Amino acid sequence: MSDVYTVISSDAHAGLPTPQYRDYLEKRYWPAFDEFLAGRDQAVEEIHKMGTSDKAFAEKWYAENSEGLEGGWDAQRRNKEMDNDGITAEVIFPDADAVESRTCAPFGVGLGLSGDTDPELGLAGAKAHNRWLAELCSDSPERRKGVALVQITAELPDVLAEISRAHESGLRAVMIPAMWMQAEPYHSRRYDPVWELCQDLQMPVCTHSGPADKESYDDHLGIYVTEVVWWPARPMWFMLWSGVFDRFPGLKFGVTEAGCWWVPNLLWFWDRLFLGQKGAEKLSSMGIQTQPSELFDRNIFIGSSNTKRREIGMRYEIGIDNMPWGNDFPHPEGTWPHSREWLAKTYHDVPIAETRRMIGEAAAEIYGFDLATLRPHAERINVTPSSLNQTDDAANVAKWAGHKQVGRHWLTGHDFPLAPVG
Amino acid sequence: MSDVYTVISSDAHAGLPTPQYRDYLEKRYWPAFDEFLAGRDQAVEEIHKMGTSDKAFAEKWYAENSEGLEGGWDAQRRNKEMDNDGITAEVIFPDADAVESRTCAPFGVGLGLSGDTDPELGLAGAKAHNRWLAELCSDSPERRKGVALVQITAELPDVLAEISRAHESGLRAVMIPAMWMQAEPYHSRRYDPVWELCQDLQMPVCTHSGPADKESYDDHLGIYVTEVVWWPARPMWFMLWSGVFDRFPGLKFGVTEAGCWWVPNLLWFWDRLFLGQKGAEKLSSMGIQTQPSELFDRNIFIGSSNTKRREIGMRYEIGIDNMPWGNDFPHPEGTWPHSREWLAKTYHDVPIAETRRMIGEAAAEIYGFDLATLRPHAERINVTPSSLNQTDDAANVAKWAGHKQVGRHWLTGHDFPLAPVG
Repeated sequence: MSDVYTVISSDAHAGLPTPQYRDYLEKRYWPAFDEFLAGRDQAVEEIHKMGTSDKAFAEKWYAENSEGLEGGWDAQRRNKEMDNDGITAEVIFPDADAVESRTCAPFGVGLGLSGDTDPELGLAGAKAHNRWLAELCSDSPERRKGVALVQITAELPDVLAEISRAHESGLRAVMIPAMWMQAEPYHSRRYDPVWELCQDLQMPVCTHSGPADKESYDDHLGIYVTEVVWWPARPMWFMLWSGVFDRFPGLKFGVTEAGCWWVPNLLWFWDRLFLGQKGAEKLSSMGIQTQPSELFDRNIFIGSSNTKRREIGMRYEIGIDNMPWGNDFPHPEGTWPHSREWLAKTYHDVPIAETRRMIGEAAAEIYGFDLATLRPHAERINVTPSSLNQTDDAANVAKWAGHKQVGRHWLTGHDFPLAPVG
Repeated sequence: MSDVYTVISSDAHAGLPTPQYRDYLEKRYWPAFDEFLAGRDQAVEEIHKMGTSDKAFAEKWYAENSEGLEGGWDAQRRNKEMDNDGITAEVIFPDADAVESRTCAPFGVGLGLSGDTDPELGLAGAKAHNRWLAELCSDSPERRKGVALVQITAELPDVLAEISRAHESGLRAVMIPAMWMQAEPYHSRRYDPVWELCQDLQMPVCTHSGPADKESYDDHLGIYVTEVVWWPARPMWFMLWSGVFDRFPGLKFGVTEAGCWWVPNLLWFWDRLFLGQKGAEKLSSMGIQTQPSELFDRNIFIGSSNTKRREIGMRYEIGIDNMPWGNDFPHPEGTWPHSREWLAKTYHDVPIAETRRMIGEAAAEIYGFDLATLRPHAERINVTPSSLNQTDDAANVAKWAGHKQVGRHWLTGHDFPLAPVG
């Protein structure tokens, strides 16, 4: 039993069926909430028109998963789904239903949280979700870290108060709008008090994929999907290049469900710029004190969710600790209810020590899970090297030794990340 | 001599010292031009403030390259620089001076061409540049393909007329605004007549790096440089996913000076979406008929300019013919006046047959250069496998054979692009 994995999903979702949020919403917002509910049918039509969910698929999905999907809001059902799926603990983002958005938070402030949401309604809706989420997390709190919704483009005192309140209620991370819209971009010093508070409370600041420049896409789904990783990642370089991570060395920033396949090129490109290599000589100083890949290792992580084999091949450039896995429960693009099989498929030849970091321990450090407390759960759930088909660890270590040695080739004096085949 | 390379720079720049454009501008725009000239000093201040050029570097650059930089507008000097630098032929974009923009086209319509440039002034300025560029290209026309500036967001009849006029005057490609701004995005059917005309005239449509969402960056240069590749690439997926390349199979679209390091991940991501793999099941049909990587191979190219070794390692995923090299003459981030050394440094272990495509023949096919006519120039200029230190072609072919066989691993049934080291 000593080699059991503590599997932590760094990307899970929970949300009440939308009408039930009423009980968590201040009474004076009920009329606005009624209006919001009345517009939901049309919102679902929009989802199908845009193509981000297909009607035929939706019917099948709900029919085949009706019980499990109740884990989107019901703690007992949720625990059962976690156990079955191999998940010891989880980080909880909003919007359990990614198919027809039936559990969206009031006024659309879940994954749709935006810099231009009406600040008053936005805060009211976010508070409603945050209150409910704290309740959900109070069941088996050792297994759950809830992510508070905070529209940081609103009035600063309100923002800071809600972050503190959410922390006191037991939530342990903050999701900010991926897109600031007409508000000040995230390089602005206006946000320093937000970063400082989140640093002090050890609450990672996250964006989550979903938002994008949708108004420009018409009904061309491929454009949306092409850009859906870029927009939530964008705050990262607005913060990094304006010195946020130099000023707040303890701040953690994460982009969630954004894949991590784009990270190696970015780090290579950034380090080259910072080091003033060919192409950068004519530029002024970049204005930051620390090498970008160092800042990335210290301050940034990418919730890679259903990690792909191609990304596994890039892990020594990305950083083993920078790409926590997630099952995206209960979204169809995630691995639930087959995460045990997906973990085996993805990590079968990865050394055990690295797997341990990537599917659990890195997330535990980022979000503050206590591994000792989780141990009995992990033992019951029993995901192990052998259940991942990691049958010969010495062979796996040897297989990747060259890659590991090369690492970020631009810093280790190697020509390419990988040597030629054969 | 049989193995001499025909080196074509798919990214070079030319522009008159700005005041001299007056002679090519219709007289009625002279007052507006005077006003534009009066604002140039402030524009240069902005460049230094943003940090895209450093004052100390600028002084050194002009002092050390005063003669060669005259090749930015003087045909004889230009030919001499090309010969010395190893360049047989070139594709000519605007803005010779990338340090203080001293040769920018009237009203900033060079690399700064934008969807929201005033349409009348924009067209007038573009015509002035296009007229002058046609003159430049009439000297040694076999060695030069000029790129016409066309603000396609303006009135359609004007746009089509200018493309036709530019073609008649001898120009052979069209640069469009990378950013449409408030105009209709490039998925709009409004632009079909533009794509059709360019297809029929065999004029590749290009964007060029430079434009970006600068207003959002304040003075944070690192943000600009991070995004400077994304914005000019963006039209590609607006066109691809809205079916432009399905409708116009003969249209060529190129993103210039954008690196090509980001291409493999994009093709992998797109093909997976198109093929409906895990993560895409809930989405509606993508609406295009042809697999994205096939469209890319047929319709798209990336002017990779000073190709990096990391990109060389990715060439079987990108496509040998999709990443034409360029010296970016006379920009400091390019390889001039040391392109011969840079070519050796970059391509020394690349098989000769592939090198021939990447540094010349692919660009010849895209832009319509006649290799037979260029032959005497190539022989005089004498860039050869041995001058690139390609001393043992059989060894180089063997070195890369495994990579070549794997190619786009997601289509060839392989796990990763490259096998592990050692």
